[in-house]
Amino acid sequence: MPNSDAGYQVAPSPDGAGLTRAVTGVDHTGARQEIRVVEERPLTIFLNSREIVTAMTIGDYPDYLALGFLRNQAMLSDTDVVTGVDYDEELDVVVVRTEVETDHEEKLAKKTRTSGCAVGTVFGDMMEELSEVTLPQMELHASDLYALAAKINTTDSLYLSAGAIHGTVLCQGAETLAYMEDVGRHNAVDKIAGWMFAEGIGAVDKTLYTTGRLTSEMVMKCAMMGVPALVSRSGFTAWGVELAQQVGLTLIGRMRGQRFMCLSGEDRLVWDADLSKVANEPRKAGRKGARS
Amino acid sequence: MPNSDAGYQVAPSPDGAGLTRAVTGVDHTGARQEIRVVEERPLTIFLNSREIVTAMTIGDYPDYLALGFLRNQAMLSDTDVVTGVDYDEELDVVVVRTEVETDHEEKLAKKTRTSGCAVGTVFGDMMEELSEVTLPQMELHASDLYALAAKINTTDSLYLSAGAIHGTVLCQGAETLAYMEDVGRHNAVDKIAGWMFAEGIGAVDKTLYTTGRLTSEMVMKCAMMGVPALVSRSGFTAWGVELAQQVGLTLIGRMRGQRFMCLSGEDRLVWDADLSKVANEPRKAGRKGARS
Repeated sequence: MPNSDAGYQVAPSPDGAGLTRAVTGVDHTGARQEIRVVEERPLTIFLNSREIVTAMTIGDYPDYLALGFLRNQAMLSDTDVVTGVDYDEELDVVVVRTEVETDHEEKLAKKTRTSGCAVGTVFGDMMEELSEVTLPQMELHASDLYALAAKINTTDSLYLSAGAIHGTVLCQGAETLAYMEDVGRHNAVDKIAGWMFAEGIGAVDKTLYTTGRLTSEMVMKCAMMGVPALVSRSGFTAWGVELAQQVGLTLIGRMRGQRFMCLSGEDRLVWDADLSKVANEPRKAGRKGARS
Repeated sequence: MPNSDAGYQVAPSPDGAGLTRAVTGVDHTGARQEIRVVEERPLTIFLNSREIVTAMTIGDYPDYLALGFLRNQAMLSDTDVVTGVDYDEELDVVVVRTEVETDHEEKLAKKTRTSGCAVGTVFGDMMEELSEVTLPQMELHASDLYALAAKINTTDSLYLSAGAIHGTVLCQGAETLAYMEDVGRHNAVDKIAGWMFAEGIGAVDKTLYTTGRLTSEMVMKCAMMGVPALVSRSGFTAWGVELAQQVGLTLIGRMRGQRFMCLSGEDRLVWDADLSKVANEPRKAGRKGARS
């Protein structure tokens, strides 16, 4: 793990086998050039005997992606006992098995509503589930947010080496615990959720940092995970803000250099940063990821 | 239309009613501030009596979105006669009616495979459909690409006014014809496809410019539309490149300032640009949209 020194328990492996591919093309001068691009492959997730969804993913951590997706869709609850997660690399299939078959598979068959930029978030019963979520109180120190952003932006990643990918980082205070990347920002979040579930990591004192936009889907996933704060370099959608306010999630976006905007749950924020010590970003650089 | 002077037949209306919402929050200094964020609302698309998918969309041009989505999914062919497109704003539903009911609705029920970052691209029969696509030969002038990029980047848009949104522009030579924006880049492409279908606009001499990444889904949509060239500021995925090469689509990415990379269909490119007259982008600005 090239990033293990940096204090991550799980971190990107930009040189990991099978995550990028060398392709040859021509550049703007007509010169032949080889560049590396990220992989994107289908992964079909089964819950017991039922096919749930096919996600397009970079391909690492298929077990965490499957577990996290099912958790975040409320198809796998705390009371379900997972007896196995089997990944078949040749078939691009991962099967999550539970001790007792649940009825979530049936629910899904009735309602396959997918979201804007989604592996297929099933909104069916999500709103019901969300209404039961209570997010814990915690202190979110502005100084920690600046420390996290500075660290994450310089962590070796597939983004830095090949681009065209999203990252999500699970944090606790100023500490970074797990950094996942994927072609879809929702997959990166699901992989974090799967890792937390598999490792028994609690959510009450955590912050989720994402490179992607703060849409309804991202807010739902964060709330389903029980993580009380979601932070991004990118912007907001109106429904994302509305949902965050409904569930009491702290939602911070447009975080670049010294600047950020908090549109929900500002009561958790502690204004302890010395802004004179935080580097500002040139305005142009600040637009990186703004549409992501 | 604020942008009609700029020569677009359809262009963003950043001040359009209902496309953005004012929300109040606190900034990094703790000061209360109002900002505008883009809307994101569900739109359920029906083909005749069958519910096909629910897209999360900004909400403009629901008719084009529905028509384009169905076209790009090969659920609506040239031989199908559309007898009506009914949009119910209160129910967030749009119904596309055809003279003869097709069997595509049935196919869908069997295979609901959705893609990485998708309104739910149904890959079911897409690969079959794609194998029948033949993209026309045409000349793609590098000088036109630079002119298009310069024009599009300065066109009044929701992106410039509220951020967190993707744009797609249908072009012909150095001319911009239609500019659509949406929270999902695939929706923006579908709206272009719907507009072309409704207006009877041919594809053989067109170029599609997108702010988003060049994933498998974007390449599939472009090929299904019959547009021979796809250009983006952002990066590539390996499968996107592979599909483009298979169908003979010209695929150009990482286009910022003078630079771009062509990873497929370079035979259409004509190197006629005088690079000394093309402004270069500062390296940092060049990362805008790189993950998008």
